[in-house]
Amino acid sequence: MPYIALPEGYPGVRSLFMYSPDTAKPLNDLVQTLLHDPTTSTLTPGERELIAAYTSRLNECKYCATTHGAIAKYQSGGDGDLVKGVMKDPATADISPKLKKLMSIAAKVQQSGRSVTPEDIDAARKEGATDKEIHDTVLIAATFCLFNRYVDGLGTWAPDDPAVYDAIGKQRASEGYLTKPFKITQQA
Amino acid sequence: MPYIALPEGYPGVRSLFMYSPDTAKPLNDLVQTLLHDPTTSTLTPGERELIAAYTSRLNECKYCATTHGAIAKYQSGGDGDLVKGVMKDPATADISPKLKKLMSIAAKVQQSGRSVTPEDIDAARKEGATDKEIHDTVLIAATFCLFNRYVDGLGTWAPDDPAVYDAIGKQRASEGYLTKPFKITQQA
Repeated sequence: MPYIALPEGYPGVRSLFMYSPDTAKPLNDLVQTLLHDPTTSTLTPGERELIAAYTSRLNECKYCATTHGAIAKYQSGGDGDLVKGVMKDPATADISPKLKKLMSIAAKVQQSGRSVTPEDIDAARKEGATDKEIHDTVLIAATFCLFNRYVDGLGTWAPDDPAVYDAIGKQRASEGYLTKPFKITQQA
Repeated sequence: MPYIALPEGYPGVRSLFMYSPDTAKPLNDLVQTLLHDPTTSTLTPGERELIAAYTSRLNECKYCATTHGAIAKYQSGGDGDLVKGVMKDPATADISPKLKKLMSIAAKVQQSGRSVTPEDIDAARKEGATDKEIHDTVLIAATFCLFNRYVDGLGTWAPDDPAVYDAIGKQRASEGYLTKPFKITQQA
């Protein structure tokens, strides 16, 4: 049960977006440009979604980790094993050396901004990460430290049925973040 | 020294906003509606700024804690002692019993969304907090878990001179978040 009265049939952050449209607008605009828009980053949407999903896993936010894991899958040619590998351990996953070092930065940001060291940044640069890619990684990880707290701090509904997340993942990977969510009639 | 090449003369998040205008727009829109707009919350702008400042202090983010402490002062009739009291300990500060319980929720959110308990919510309700006020508190604390990580995770410049923060506080309390920052020529 959510801690406040939220519209039924909408899980996680979507129930909060229905509840508070004034703040939903900038939050959706933020993830649209940060994760989905192909022109705003030299990291691919799939790479950006993996950073979002991994940060959410570290924060143990079931709704965000599973949703963005599913979006990452659809943004990476449907490769579910890739996502599973990253969620288990980015260091051994089938991703580029550069993305591994960016994932290490995301893991530091998840703890605290103050945990990031010049050595973490240098290690990413040595694998070819640009200033903008380091910036985007820090902001994606920080943004999911917001969403994970918003979603779990108000006790929102996280469905159990994997098919629900898969459907959300397919929708968001294709449509981005600015379209309306579908109501989930079968509450898993 | 910031970890990436940022425009000089702009401290903290303002240097990041100059660097990345695409993400600055929704982030500024978010704080404008969440903290400044008097019509979007039954918490006063001063109360909302206190929650932002206190969360930032818990995250040990000097730039955000000092800036939003200064804004809170100007949004609370210039009462610097009130801000100092909250930063020291909300439980003994000169704030309402309702705001004390909301500050306890913010402190839980700073740790993790999953740290918030039904008992924390009930305690705030017993002091008169509404659903919307609980929502706004969780989202403000979560938002500053984003900003604090963004600001410190990229090693941005936090001035030492208290007069700089006081000037920023006065500007933001009066103008809100959508006007341009002034360049700081004398780097403290």
